[in-house]
Amino acid sequence: MSTQHCQEPRAEAPRTVISVDAMGGDRGPAAVVAGLVKAATKNPEIRFILHGRRAELEQLVSRRRVLAGRVDIRDAADVVTMEAKPSQVMRHGQATSMWSALDSVRNGEAPVCVSCGNTGALMLLSIVRLRKLPGVNRPAIACLWPSRNPHGFNVMLDVGADVRADEHDLLQYALMGSSYARNGLGLNRPRVGILNVGTEENKGRAELKAAHDLIEASCAAGQFDFVGFVEGGDIPSDKVDVIVTDGFTGNVALKTGEGTARLVGDFLREAFSATPLSRVAALLALTSLRRLKKRIDPRRVNGGVFLGLNGTVVKSHGSSDATGVAAAVKLAWELAQSGFTERLAARVATASGPVHEMVKDVAGGER
Amino acid sequence: MSTQHCQEPRAEAPRTVISVDAMGGDRGPAAVVAGLVKAATKNPEIRFILHGRRAELEQLVSRRRVLAGRVDIRDAADVVTMEAKPSQVMRHGQATSMWSALDSVRNGEAPVCVSCGNTGALMLLSIVRLRKLPGVNRPAIACLWPSRNPHGFNVMLDVGADVRADEHDLLQYALMGSSYARNGLGLNRPRVGILNVGTEENKGRAELKAAHDLIEASCAAGQFDFVGFVEGGDIPSDKVDVIVTDGFTGNVALKTGEGTARLVGDFLREAFSATPLSRVAALLALTSLRRLKKRIDPRRVNGGVFLGLNGTVVKSHGSSDATGVAAAVKLAWELAQSGFTERLAARVATASGPVHEMVKDVAGGER
Repeated sequence: MSTQHCQEPRAEAPRTVISVDAMGGDRGPAAVVAGLVKAATKNPEIRFILHGRRAELEQLVSRRRVLAGRVDIRDAADVVTMEAKPSQVMRHGQATSMWSALDSVRNGEAPVCVSCGNTGALMLLSIVRLRKLPGVNRPAIACLWPSRNPHGFNVMLDVGADVRADEHDLLQYALMGSSYARNGLGLNRPRVGILNVGTEENKGRAELKAAHDLIEASCAAGQFDFVGFVEGGDIPSDKVDVIVTDGFTGNVALKTGEGTARLVGDFLREAFSATPLSRVAALLALTSLRRLKKRIDPRRVNGGVFLGLNGTVVKSHGSSDATGVAAAVKLAWELAQSGFTERLAARVATASGPVHEMVKDVAGGER
Repeated sequence: MSTQHCQEPRAEAPRTVISVDAMGGDRGPAAVVAGLVKAATKNPEIRFILHGRRAELEQLVSRRRVLAGRVDIRDAADVVTMEAKPSQVMRHGQATSMWSALDSVRNGEAPVCVSCGNTGALMLLSIVRLRKLPGVNRPAIACLWPSRNPHGFNVMLDVGADVRADEHDLLQYALMGSSYARNGLGLNRPRVGILNVGTEENKGRAELKAAHDLIEASCAAGQFDFVGFVEGGDIPSDKVDVIVTDGFTGNVALKTGEGTARLVGDFLREAFSATPLSRVAALLALTSLRRLKKRIDPRRVNGGVFLGLNGTVVKSHGSSDATGVAAAVKLAWELAQSGFTERLAARVATASGPVHEMVKDVAGGER
C-alpha cells in the first residue's frame, strides 16, 4: 500500500459501514457488542467490521439476532492495554485490534473507525496509519459540550491530541471545528471563539493575539463568524459554537467540567438523602431529576473525534457501557453519512492554498 | 515612605482591623456596607477602615447601628472602574479608593485589604504599593474550590495573576499554597499536586516535568506531601488539597468550573419547572435544593487571595452582594488572626535560602 494511496480521499468507502475496535475498553468486548446491538436496532442500514479475538467475538455476536449478517469479524490476537506506551504500540502493535480497526479505514472498507481504547496510542496509530491531511500540522481531538444553544451542544478542540498549538494550528482548529459543527451539528455558519483569560483583545498569551488576527482574517473565506476571545464560563454558553484552544488547556477544561458536573450530581444525591422527608421529596422529584440527568449524561455525548487525518476516528470513553458505545457509533454514522472526511479535507486545503478561489469551489458542496 | 519599610513584615498591624475598598464593585458601596454589617454582627471584635467617597459612606454607615464606632472612613474621590487599564491606574490612580485601601496595609494600619474592584488593576497596584516578598518572582491568586475533602474546600493557584509560570514559580506556588491551606483551612500537612493532562510522570509540558522534580525534592523541607500530577477532574477531589498551575490554565479551569455549575443549576431549575407535577415536586424538595445550593453557592467561597506580597489582599467578586462581601471579610479576618502574612513570608524565604536550616526555625511557629 503506497503512501499516495493513503492521502487520497476515500470516496469509495461505503458510508454504511463502521469499523469498530472491539477490545481495549475497560468493560471488554461484551459492552462493545451490546452497544452495536443498540445502534443496529435503531438503524437498519448500519453494518460493522468488528476487530478483535475471533472466537470471543463470534460467540458474542451469534447470540444477538439483530446483528445477523451485519457484522464482518476480523481476527486480531492482541489488545492495546490502557497502560501501553503509544510508541511501543506503534512499533509492535501490528496484531492489535486497534491497528486492524484503523486499517479498515486506511484501505477504504469503512469511512469511520470507533475505539474505546488508549487515547494516546489511538492518536499516534491514527497518524501513522491514516496520515495527516495535506496542510495539517497538528491533528486535534474535538469534543461536544452540553450548552445553552438550541442545538444543545458546542464543539471544543483540541482537548488532548497535542499539548502545544501555535497560531497557525489554532487557525486550522477553527477551520476543522467549523467543518465539524456544520456536519455534526447542522450549523450553516458556526461562530468560532478562542479560549482566553479575558475577552479584551490585549489579554492573554502572545500566540493567542496572533491567532486572533489570523482567524479574524480567515472567517469570511472560511464561512464562519468570529466572536473573538471567550472565557471558560462561555464554553457551555449560547454566544459561541466552536471553541478553539491548545490540547493542554482544552483537556484541563474538559476534565474540570466533567469533574464539576459529577461533584454537583453527588451533592444533589446527598442533599436528597439527608433526611426522611428529603427522601420522600426525591421520589416525587424522580421524573425531574431523570430529565436533568439525561440532559447532562456524559454518555450521550460520548465520542471525541480526531480531526485532520485521512479518515475519521471516533474515540469513545474507556469506561463506555452499551449506551456510550451506541452514542459513539451514532456519531460515527452521522459523520460517515455527510461525507465528513472529504469535506473536512477540502476545507483545510482552502487554508493552505490561495484561500478565496478555492473556498468558492468547496463551499457550495458543504452544508 | 522608604522601600525598605515596605519590605519589613508588619507585625505591628492590629489583627482586628480590615481595610476595605468600598467602591469599584458592580453593586456600589451600599452592597459593601451591607456586607460589613453582616460581618460585624457575627464578629464583635472586627473593625474596619473604609475607603471611598466620604459623604456617601458616612450616610450609609450612620444608618447601621452595629457599625457605630467601628468604621474609620478615609475619603477617596476617585473610583477604579471595571474597564480601567491597570497601567493607567498605576500612573494616575493615587486618588482612588483602591489605592487608599492598599496603603492602609502598606503603612501598617491593617494586615489585610478587601476589594471587589477590577482584578488586573488591584493586582498591579498591590505589587507596586505592597511590593513582592523577597524571593517571590510571580505573586499568585489563590482560590478555594468546593471539594469532597472533610474541610470542604481545596486551594488552587494561580487562577489569574500571570499567564506564565516556570518550574521555579510553580515551586513557590506550592509553598505559598500549602501555607494558605495551613492558615486558611487548618491543614497540618497539605497534599500538593500539579495540574496536568495525565497523571503519568512522562506526560505534559516540559516545565511541568521540571516542576515535578523540584517540588518533590522540596516537600520534606516544606512540610507538605506531594501527590504528583493531578487532572482537571481531581480539582474538587479528596486526593489533593492544593493544586498548583499557571495563571492561564488556572483561570480557565476556575471559570469552566463556575460555568458548568451554573449550567447544571439552570438545567435543574428547568427540569423542575417543566410540568405542573414537577413544580409540586420542587416545592417538596425545596429544603434539599436549598441544602445543595448552600454547598455550591459561589458567594460562600468568595475571595481570591493574592499571595507573595508584603501584606494580604482578598479580591472579592465584582458582582458580590452583602453575603459575598461578608464571606470575603470573614476570610480576611481569619488570615489576619493567624498572622498569615508573616508566616507566608517566612515560608517562602525557606525556598530561597539554604532550605533545611531555615525551615526548622520557621516550621515550629506555623500551624
